[in-house]
Amino acid sequence: MANLHLNVSEVLDHISLDCVIFGFHDNELKVLMLRLKHTNAYALPGGFLKHEETLEQAAERTLKERTGLDNIFLKQFKVFSDPNRDKLKKDNPEFLKNEPPEVVAFFNKRFISVGFYALVEFSKVDPQPDALSEACEWISPFADVEMFIDHKDIIDKALTTLRIQLNQQPIGLKLLPRKFTMPQLQKLYETILGRELDRRNFQRKILSYKILNKLNERKTGGAHKAPFLYEFNRESYKQALEDGLSGIW
Amino acid sequence: MANLHLNVSEVLDHISLDCVIFGFHDNELKVLMLRLKHTNAYALPGGFLKHEETLEQAAERTLKERTGLDNIFLKQFKVFSDPNRDKLKKDNPEFLKNEPPEVVAFFNKRFISVGFYALVEFSKVDPQPDALSEACEWISPFADVEMFIDHKDIIDKALTTLRIQLNQQPIGLKLLPRKFTMPQLQKLYETILGRELDRRNFQRKILSYKILNKLNERKTGGAHKAPFLYEFNRESYKQALEDGLSGIW
Repeated sequence: MANLHLNVSEVLDHISLDCVIFGFHDNELKVLMLRLKHTNAYALPGGFLKHEETLEQAAERTLKERTGLDNIFLKQFKVFSDPNRDKLKKDNPEFLKNEPPEVVAFFNKRFISVGFYALVEFSKVDPQPDALSEACEWISPFADVEMFIDHKDIIDKALTTLRIQLNQQPIGLKLLPRKFTMPQLQKLYETILGRELDRRNFQRKILSYKILNKLNERKTGGAHKAPFLYEFNRESYKQALEDGLSGIW
Repeated sequence: MANLHLNVSEVLDHISLDCVIFGFHDNELKVLMLRLKHTNAYALPGGFLKHEETLEQAAERTLKERTGLDNIFLKQFKVFSDPNRDKLKKDNPEFLKNEPPEVVAFFNKRFISVGFYALVEFSKVDPQPDALSEACEWISPFADVEMFIDHKDIIDKALTTLRIQLNQQPIGLKLLPRKFTMPQLQKLYETILGRELDRRNFQRKILSYKILNKLNERKTGGAHKAPFLYEFNRESYKQALEDGLSGIW
């Protein structure tokens, strides 16, 4: 019997959206994917656009329907429109086997996809798969696993965007403990960038943005002289979110 | 008789694109618009997506077909998907009066629009209107003129994006003479930002990006001691285009 429960008259042809939810925890960067039933492939939580909603509303709704997650700040980053991006699903894909003809016809059309991304602390959210998926899993963005159509490319572009944003917007407020050390903050950046940074350059650059308060406390524990603790200056952080890290001209 | 010469079977339903071509010249910022036949409204050069092309290819093709311009670096910046964005054109618009039923049906559907923008030196390009338009005009982005559907909002969002980009990417290589003064460069930034900047802060900030060579020449003419001439350091400019003005982490 039909599984998708998709009413194709409720959504627009040719338009889809995909959510790239990056998760950070314990110096690891992951991406949230659905392991599809009937295949070994992983897919991003994605969906379609209803008649009376914006793409932003569709993305929120889709994420909630596919994973249960909400209150996540999703940012539109790119539209994927390679005419060949979804041709491989046209070889009688398993998930369309029992669907009515109008659903099959809908899926066999060409789709562009609007990509949205977010970055969360993955130990603080609890994604649940929907009826179409076997499981929700946090996997490495570089994992050599089979992914649905061009979702690997969508993840790559989202990661590039996230990395570029590191130069423009502050991060860490929701990803680190309230008090943290400079090495902890540096490790967050290194995890996202996927490479090591020079300790002195990092400290000089991050301090130049004036978004940190140095506390009169050192991190306890450890044999050596403990590093100082810092916290974000909430005013400056908020201003930097609005104006960008370089400030306005 | 039908004017649009649109073969609706060649393009996808529900998807359109619009190009916001900003022009800079003589310390003025303009946007390229088409003055439509049969109305007083101005519209951005826009079009649809053919079956075998990407949105980027569609944007290039559309700009060339609607204005004759090509070799312009177009950047995707946002998808506009307010369900009410194009409802006003559904009140029997003039341009659909003589069109066949399938064209009228196509236009009466809902469209999302993918916005692209570019910044050119407007004295160096020569846009020509197509058969649908009375004229191509460079108008002020803030002009109080009637604009087609949500094109004013698309221009506003493009301008915001262009301004944010000033913190991230260098500009000026194609917009200024090869040798220019610091006040000339500052005026370019002020024109885009729509406000005056402090001279000393601007100079300090732009020099900190290390994309300029100070020349051993002063600008000739003028009663006072002439300002020094600068040129862009092409290597550094190119690097800054790739890595961003702040450099990489």
